[in-house]
Amino acid sequence: MIVTVIGLGLIGGSMAIDLKKRGFAKKIIGVDADNLHAQTALKIGFIDEIADFENGISQADIIILATPVNHATELLPKILDRTENQIVTDVCSTKSNICVAVSTHRKRANYVAGHPMAGTEFSGPWAAVAGLFDGKAGILCDISKSSDHALNIIKSMYETLNLRQVFMESSAHDVHAAYVSHISHITSFALALTVLDKERNDNHIFDLAGGGFRSTVRLAKSSAEMWVPIFEENSQNVIEVLDTYIEKMQLFRDAISKHETSEIRNLILNANKIKRVV
Amino acid sequence: MIVTVIGLGLIGGSMAIDLKKRGFAKKIIGVDADNLHAQTALKIGFIDEIADFENGISQADIIILATPVNHATELLPKILDRTENQIVTDVCSTKSNICVAVSTHRKRANYVAGHPMAGTEFSGPWAAVAGLFDGKAGILCDISKSSDHALNIIKSMYETLNLRQVFMESSAHDVHAAYVSHISHITSFALALTVLDKERNDNHIFDLAGGGFRSTVRLAKSSAEMWVPIFEENSQNVIEVLDTYIEKMQLFRDAISKHETSEIRNLILNANKIKRVV
Repeated sequence: MIVTVIGLGLIGGSMAIDLKKRGFAKKIIGVDADNLHAQTALKIGFIDEIADFENGISQADIIILATPVNHATELLPKILDRTENQIVTDVCSTKSNICVAVSTHRKRANYVAGHPMAGTEFSGPWAAVAGLFDGKAGILCDISKSSDHALNIIKSMYETLNLRQVFMESSAHDVHAAYVSHISHITSFALALTVLDKERNDNHIFDLAGGGFRSTVRLAKSSAEMWVPIFEENSQNVIEVLDTYIEKMQLFRDAISKHETSEIRNLILNANKIKRVV
Repeated sequence: MIVTVIGLGLIGGSMAIDLKKRGFAKKIIGVDADNLHAQTALKIGFIDEIADFENGISQADIIILATPVNHATELLPKILDRTENQIVTDVCSTKSNICVAVSTHRKRANYVAGHPMAGTEFSGPWAAVAGLFDGKAGILCDISKSSDHALNIIKSMYETLNLRQVFMESSAHDVHAAYVSHISHITSFALALTVLDKERNDNHIFDLAGGGFRSTVRLAKSSAEMWVPIFEENSQNVIEVLDTYIEKMQLFRDAISKHETSEIRNLILNANKIKRVV
């Protein structure tokens, strides 16, 4: 198979590494609007050659669209316009808009909407790593809109990446993702802002930071290029989760300020039930 | 040295392991109100014998008080009542109240207020691990109230544990700890409650949870026994940080609901500055 990756960042790059290494791809072609990214991907070696948009599409058997979701939503119809038998998939963190954007496209059946739920707080081709997807959830959305042929090829690609396949409608995906991914990023961003504010008057605030702080603030390093479009596209679901979350914070605030220790205790014991699932 | 550890949980147990292994303690005596904890500590082997409160104190050169902070604040004066030349230190996450509790005690100089800033989301003697403190911040508070002799012994104990020594007043400690530790726990508890609420109507919500969610929700497994007293004792500082944090969440909420992408972008770029410090 010849695989073209459009968008040579953390996700596109990490897919390229394992698809080549595990024998799924004979050749990886890289396409990126940013020449530094393309040159870096070639230098690191996870793509075999650089191509422009047109050539990258025409030479491919499979096209993986791995740009931020706002660009992907614009690019996907243009890619489908240019395909004959090529299979196209994406990796975006929101799925409703991108699926709507091609819902009536004559080549819709060639496209499989995907979201490999993996990542780190880093971005760019230099962040790509082997094994990123092993054991993670790989969501495939609205699969009845894809041809059996396209779906089978992408399933086999997910198997190569050791992604655990989960199937759902794109609208359900976006609700789920708001709860188990998007909100986590906002809680981290807000924590970083809170402590950085304090640091202005207290240079040594971070001397004491330990593993707990590091763990909860890690996602605050995530890139604006990726996350602004996600919050924008999934705003309705994200707002709903944010409102619930702020209510929970307020419950803690009230219980602590009123010294209601049995209420604080109940909140913590209920939160501890997360042990069952993660 | 004979070291008595009162409270055989994650912190007391992990200290015992390294103090024995690295030759600082010749013998470790364990004291715990919960007999299962004491028996487990003996069975795991990080204490050499079990003693009751009186005997544990009378036999010791150094006493490490490692119970939840509410118990520690009650026990510390009683321990000092019973000491002659024994050095006493604690490991509690809030320092103002416990220091006030013994401020006029005739043996105050034998006590060194400490907080090794290390931990995991687990608790109990079975959670104790070697190397927990290596490279972490070890805060020593109000050191002018301790004798040089007591301070030197505890410093040497911290060196054995590879704790990076940081000195500050107990009141300053409690402000710092609210920012870089206590708030992180509340953000995790609230996140767990938010997603567990959703799960009631949606069994499969956790199928998609990946590393980011896991990282931000990890501390929600932390024990109520330890954390209720911390929030209670440090309520004023914690409320102040909570209010700032809720404001930051509200900024995100407003920007996302009004589709102000440049404001969302600015918030994220500012949060990204955390890269500089963690």
